[in-house]
Order: sequence, then structure tokens, then C-alpha cells
Amino acid sequence: VRESELLDHIYRRSSELERFAHVVAGPGHDCAVIALPGGECALLKVDQLVEGIHFAPFPRTPVNLIARKAVARAISDIAAAGGRPLATLVGGVLPRDCGYAEDLLDGLVQWAAHWNAPLVGGDTAIWDFSRSDSSGAEQGTSQVAPAGPLVLSVSVVGVPHGQRGPVLRSGARTGDAVYVSGVLGGTFDARTALGRHLTFEPRLIEARFLCDLLGDDLHAMMDLSDGLGRDGARLAAASGVKLVLESAAIPAAPGARWQGAIAGGEDYELLFTAPATIAIPHQCTDTGVAFQRIGRVEAGAGCVVQAEGREIDCSAMGWEHGEG
Amino acid sequence: VRESELLDHIYRRSSELERFAHVVAGPGHDCAVIALPGGECALLKVDQLVEGIHFAPFPRTPVNLIARKAVARAISDIAAAGGRPLATLVGGVLPRDCGYAEDLLDGLVQWAAHWNAPLVGGDTAIWDFSRSDSSGAEQGTSQVAPAGPLVLSVSVVGVPHGQRGPVLRSGARTGDAVYVSGVLGGTFDARTALGRHLTFEPRLIEARFLCDLLGDDLHAMMDLSDGLGRDGARLAAASGVKLVLESAAIPAAPGARWQGAIAGGEDYELLFTAPATIAIPHQCTDTGVAFQRIGRVEAGAGCVVQAEGREIDCSAMGWEHGEG
Repeated sequence: VRESELLDHIYRRSSELERFAHVVAGPGHDCAVIALPGGECALLKVDQLVEGIHFAPFPRTPVNLIARKAVARAISDIAAAGGRPLATLVGGVLPRDCGYAEDLLDGLVQWAAHWNAPLVGGDTAIWDFSRSDSSGAEQGTSQVAPAGPLVLSVSVVGVPHGQRGPVLRSGARTGDAVYVSGVLGGTFDARTALGRHLTFEPRLIEARFLCDLLGDDLHAMMDLSDGLGRDGARLAAASGVKLVLESAAIPAAPGARWQGAIAGGEDYELLFTAPATIAIPHQCTDTGVAFQRIGRVEAGAGCVVQAEGREIDCSAMGWEHGEG
Repeated sequence: VRESELLDHIYRRSSELERFAHVVAGPGHDCAVIALPGGECALLKVDQLVEGIHFAPFPRTPVNLIARKAVARAISDIAAAGGRPLATLVGGVLPRDCGYAEDLLDGLVQWAAHWNAPLVGGDTAIWDFSRSDSSGAEQGTSQVAPAGPLVLSVSVVGVPHGQRGPVLRSGARTGDAVYVSGVLGGTFDARTALGRHLTFEPRLIEARFLCDLLGDDLHAMMDLSDGLGRDGARLAAASGVKLVLESAAIPAAPGARWQGAIAGGEDYELLFTAPATIAIPHQCTDTGVAFQRIGRVEAGAGCVVQAEGREIDCSAMGWEHGEG
């Protein structure tokens, strides 16, 4: 089974969510949105980090940066909904005798607090675990699990922007312009000499800036985790429209060409749309992060890029992840 | 590192939560409690299920019951806070070619909906994963993880009882009586011929019944996952009191003696305290599940059981888990 098939399976089952009136948005957006009984909305997101899939095994990746990435990925999704993070939960399965367990917890506490989403709950298990008491025999379960790599599952709860409400992937309309924040396709952070996927800044401030500025004219937004092509196609599908990108307008990171900027994953920049008639500032005045117009929304389906006089389907350019 | 050491480490770091005014309760309770900006409270819980630790590997454990237990454990904690579940998030790492991925997802969707906490988001990864595209080389991460067992991390969001508010472990007072629901130490469900840890009913209805009935007189509550002795000591520690249990009063499951009823884990029954002067019904009138008075709250610390004229410390009787 492939992750994309699981994702499709989850989406098909999502139609059953309609009988739960308090589910405002389910799988298929950066965050789920639920309405509490009193009327307040909460944003919910879970993201996993698996050693060997999402980061190079320790010690190639420093423990503090493993913790940072685990939290930052889910925070980035709260940002993409225009939200404010409030709290973090972590489930962790740790290698036995890994030697870094406390440092890892400290890192998770530190980074969760950094983004104002304090770590309020957790559950830890240890690979290759042997029970020290005899009660296990009563449970009918094997008490020894094979040793395995580090797995972190991070859930973040947030709230949407007070005026704008939750920004979803599904709001793009024909006649919108398409924008991204920052630059795409960068793999290396020159300032820290680390992989950018370990050092990216979730665009919380920029997303709030856009919500404040545009209100309901901020039609759709998501974060770019699997590449502009693949993620653009997801936004297009959620909105029932076609995204037409211009290769020359895509802000590629130094050393990257537009192909890399479209296909590279883990940019964690914002992709958003707003009416083409509205002027968008060239940058977020709070942070200096650029906003670049890169295309337009048309009737149709899919995500294409115009390059060298041709129109190229880029819907499959990028990474396949199992996010739902 | 042991799970109890990690737990202690998390608790020590929890003091830093005080600077976040919206965190009503953090690690050390069955659920975390956070206040949203508009004043509504949310209950948050994460629980993990690891193949070989929490259940016998498939196919010894049917996939639908793996899904059931994964969801039920977190739902039980929402119940223990007197709450109502609203939504579920699942992070899963699946064995490659396990053959049951879609059945597992179906089971998670089914059981989450069963307890009115629909599955609104998920993230899946697959062990022994190889990228099918070439972009991975740019990410600086190894693209192949070792094969491993099934890991499920389930987060449930709920809301507290409307009148009572969240019930915590920390409210027990000297002069309270101590109660449990149901029977303890059962390992086998005679009706289904399955391990009880796979078939238990989270005590949502019973907890709501108690909140409705007792209001603020329901001083403290938790669910019993690691054994009455160990969990009783946790409630005692959270409340700054001593629990004195009477061995003859503990409702042991058929075939179990009081020692097994105290030390057996995964009962998922409610442990609660209320003023000894208040009469508690012998059962929940909605479900028929019994409430049994099993002891009293005194000044002091720890959890002891009176048996055969002696007072025995039972604070370490039970399972060690990494729940925080």
C-alpha cells in the first residue's frame, strides 16, 4: 500500500464526517477545524517525524533540531490556516538506551513554548521494552517489542484568526492571483550551515499579517511541504479550480532553478490566493519575508506551469507524503 | 532511561507551564486542559499503541480491535476528566506490505465515530519506505527506514462537563471516600472470549452521570490504566493526600483476588473521590455499571491497602507506563 492510496482512502471515508455538525473541516486541509459547543473553533493538526524518513538518524541530526522539526511541521500547518497555536501533545517511541531522551524532551518543551504552544501532554514508549514486573503475563500481550528508530507524533491545537476565521485550501476562485511567501527549492540554510528542513520558520507572523490585511479576500492558503507542484494541485482540487503558474515568477532559492523550486519538498512557505484586483504588499512588514505573485487561478483542474512558451503539468512534481 | 524517569523529567519541566495562563492543567492529569481565547475549555489527550508492547502482533490481535483499543484508551482519559470527546487525530507508522492498512483506517474511523469523536486528521508513514522520486537526495535525509512494527498515536480533543468543568486528579480531600466503577483485575471478557484490554468500555456515560449527580462534590477522578495501586498513588500525590483502601471492599473480577485487582493494569475503570458524607448510588442508572466504595482519603501520602489487619503500601503495584 502506498501513502497516497491511504490518503485517498481517508478522503473517501471523510464524507461520513458530514453527520458530525461540529466538524467544520476534516482531512484534506492543512488543519482540521472543529466547533466547540459554545461556538469557538479549534484547529487540530497531527504530524509525524520518523528517523530515517524525515531526518537523518542521530547523531547526524542534532537532537534539538529533531525536536524543532517535529514541532515546527505541525505549527506550520496552524500558520497555513491563519491560526494561532495554543498547545502541543507529543507521542514518542524512543530507541532503548538512546542516551538523548531527556535532551529530546527538553527540546520538545523548548520549541513548543517558543511558538506559544506549550507541551501539555505526552506519551512515551521505548523500543525493545521488557516489563520489570510479572503482571504482563495477565495482559495477553507480548512484552518485548523489536528495537526500532525514533518516532515522534506531534499534535498541535490552535485557534483561527479572530476576524478572518479558519483559512482553508478550498476557497480559491477563478480570477484570483496566486502567491507564495519566501523562496522555494532551498535545501541549505547558509546562515546555520544546516539543512533548511531543520531550520525553517513556520510562517505564523506572515499568515496573521495576511489575515489582518486581507480578511475574507484571503481566499485560500496552505503550507508547502511536498513541493509547489503537488501541493498546488491539492489546493486546486480542494477549490475545484486550476492553478496556472509562471515559471519566471517563481522565487527560486539561490542555486535552484524553477524546476527545483516546484519539485522540492519541505519549503514550509505559504501558498495563497486572493482576488487579482487587490494589491498585495511585496513583503510582510513585520518580518521582511517576501510575497511573490506567481500565477493565477482559472477554471479547470490541476496545476500547470508556463515555461518557455509551453504549459507543463506539474501536479505530480514533489514529494508523496501521507498527510491527511 | 526508564519511562518513569522520562515521566519525572516531564513533570519537572511542567512548572514552566505556569507562564502560559491558558494552560489550566498540564502533564500529571488524565487530560490536559486549555482555555481558548473566548473562554471555552478543551481537554487534550495523546496515547500510543505499539505492536508488541500494547497488543500482541497481528494477526493474533484482530485489526479492528487494534483500532478500537487505540481510540478507546484516549477516550477513557476524556471520560476520566468528566468530558465529552469531540474529535480524533491519528498518527500511524505501518509495516510495509502489512495488508491491513485500509482495514485499520476503517477501524479507526469506525471507533472514533462510535464515541462521537470523528477522525478529522491523520498522518501516515510506512516503515522500510523508499522514495519513488529523486527529490529526496536534496533533503539531506536518508530515505529508507528500517522495517518496524505498527505504531499508532491517537490524540483526542474533548470538552469538559458543562456545569462541573474538568475533573482532575488533584481535588481529593481528607474526609473523602474513595470509589471505583466496575470490577478490577479482569483479564478476559467472557462474552467475547477476548482480552478485556481489547474490549473495555470507556466510562463516558458513568463519568457524566457522576458529574451531573455530584457537581463540585466529585472532587477527583482518573481512569485506571496502570493498576489501582500505582494509579491510586498518582491521585494521592496530585492531591497531596493519602489513599487508604480496604482489601475486602475492592471489587475483584471473577477469578481475581484483591492483589490482582490492585496490581492488574488496563482496567480502564474510574477511580474517584467525594465527601464521605454524601451517598453515592450503587450503580450508574443509565448503564448498570457498579460504583463501589473501596476506601478513604486521609492526610499523608501514598496509597496503602488494609488487608488481614495490616497496612500494606501498594503504591508500586501495577504497571509502569510513560503517560504524562
